[in-house]
Amino acid sequence: MTEKIIALSKLVEQGIHQFELPIKPNNLYDPLRYFMTLGGKRIRPVLSLMGAKLFNAPAENVLHVSIGVELFHNFTLIHDDIMDAAPLRRAKETVHSKWNENIAILSGDVLMVKAYEEICKQKPEDLPELLTLFNRTAIEVCEGQQMDMDFEERDDVSITEYIEMIRLKTSVLLGCSLEMGAIVAKANKADREKLYSFGQELGIAFQIKDDILDLYGDPKKFGKQIGGDVMANKKTLLYLLAREAANKDQMDQFDALEKDIDSTRKVATVRALFDELGVQEKAKSTMELHRKNAMKSLNEINVPEEQKTDLRELADYLMNREN
Amino acid sequence: MTEKIIALSKLVEQGIHQFELPIKPNNLYDPLRYFMTLGGKRIRPVLSLMGAKLFNAPAENVLHVSIGVELFHNFTLIHDDIMDAAPLRRAKETVHSKWNENIAILSGDVLMVKAYEEICKQKPEDLPELLTLFNRTAIEVCEGQQMDMDFEERDDVSITEYIEMIRLKTSVLLGCSLEMGAIVAKANKADREKLYSFGQELGIAFQIKDDILDLYGDPKKFGKQIGGDVMANKKTLLYLLAREAANKDQMDQFDALEKDIDSTRKVATVRALFDELGVQEKAKSTMELHRKNAMKSLNEINVPEEQKTDLRELADYLMNREN
Repeated sequence: MTEKIIALSKLVEQGIHQFELPIKPNNLYDPLRYFMTLGGKRIRPVLSLMGAKLFNAPAENVLHVSIGVELFHNFTLIHDDIMDAAPLRRAKETVHSKWNENIAILSGDVLMVKAYEEICKQKPEDLPELLTLFNRTAIEVCEGQQMDMDFEERDDVSITEYIEMIRLKTSVLLGCSLEMGAIVAKANKADREKLYSFGQELGIAFQIKDDILDLYGDPKKFGKQIGGDVMANKKTLLYLLAREAANKDQMDQFDALEKDIDSTRKVATVRALFDELGVQEKAKSTMELHRKNAMKSLNEINVPEEQKTDLRELADYLMNREN
Repeated sequence: MTEKIIALSKLVEQGIHQFELPIKPNNLYDPLRYFMTLGGKRIRPVLSLMGAKLFNAPAENVLHVSIGVELFHNFTLIHDDIMDAAPLRRAKETVHSKWNENIAILSGDVLMVKAYEEICKQKPEDLPELLTLFNRTAIEVCEGQQMDMDFEERDDVSITEYIEMIRLKTSVLLGCSLEMGAIVAKANKADREKLYSFGQELGIAFQIKDDILDLYGDPKKFGKQIGGDVMANKKTLLYLLAREAANKDQMDQFDALEKDIDSTRKVATVRALFDELGVQEKAKSTMELHRKNAMKSLNEINVPEEQKTDLRELADYLMNREN
């Protein structure tokens, strides 16, 4: 990460640290205190700060929005972890594992309200535009999560559908975080829309990067077990590209591998098949396409080039990261 | 119900009927279409309309708020039903029974956002006050639900704690629904606060009425099985009043009855013990206390008496209802 990004992350971390939750009922708020300090990249709040700075507004003016989007993101993680029956998040116990499902449902619910409460601390004049965008985005994130769950039950998911799913589940919140910063900075509608597109396209590229890292990351740098998606038979872009290119024989091999209980062998064999089919290159070129779309939108925003440096650096960091 | 209440209920029912949800993803929105048409008393939206009318604003001005509070209430029911593992709601399958838990979690989530989206359709100038109140209330409702769950694990719940729990879980949303109507009608702060108190106290009385009806309701009119709370060993006000008054021998009988699997015998024996202890009268006098508090607040609101008729009639209806 560059110094600029680190400085903004620190501002966010400080804001989250200062964000106070009530003590009682403990079973409602202890899980949130726990979960909010598990860390993470804090990309969304940094994007809100950068969205404001791009149009010359000080980061301080958008702090509540930035905390709000991070709270919302964490709410989605707590509920997604229940739905995925995931025992771990960032190598620590998930809320429903450490407490129980009911507590995870309810503390997630109250965290979503807390996100709204934070955002509503912005200037009243900005609330209608901020909330219209945030409401739409929050709905889309739920729709993306539902599509993701539906895909688990389907064998005919197309790549177009997959991209649409990750757009909703992940990318729209990046676009929203940026644009909310731009709203506070009173940017004009055209520039705001381009900034949103930048975030949305970058988000799609970001999620594809995630899919690639999961199988092709450097085990020393990745921080998680390589091949987790393969072990869980997840329908990532890699998997869909492979199925699209596979012949009958390869298709049968994939079907057989889904039931393989030797996970080391399974990951190695799937990777060998993916390599035969050129899956990594195809995924990278899809990622590159969305990265380019993002940069095109950023280029078109009508502010001096030097004000775009932070966002270019963040995009580079997200695209070149190894974990 | 009086004609006035019926007319306002119809306006609400029409608004809910016209409220459109997207088609896809079906698994996200079908459960909501199903759940929103299960009916219910629609008390909260009617209160919003009455809150506006009390201060001479037309009901139409507050329609989005009224739909919003009903959507929010239904979100809490969907999630509460998961937490209570309840198979039925209004004699129909709950969302998690008819679909599954994941779908119930996520469709509940999106319904909460939809509630915000509706409320945000009100005039921009009213949003800061509406949302400050609504956010606080939504948080309190979650806190009340958590207290309710915590009480299930405890043997030392006091009556004061119980009243505080139902205040948060049920009553604050009634106060909020009314006050949001008053905000739209530009009522002054003092009158708004009195109206909120009216709703809050009425809500407590309303919930105690629920507890009483569950065991002492007329089986022909109640619509649900009599004694449901006793069968489920729920810590209602009746139960807490009984434990407070019971001697050692009666206490032992209660403990033994908790494990009784013959539900008819259990309900009859518990009722006989409650009668010995004068529980119904005590509960009614607690209810009456809160009803009186409510009416005192209503009396103090500075508008002509004839504008209070609707609210008086609604309070009478809620206090005298048999289901």
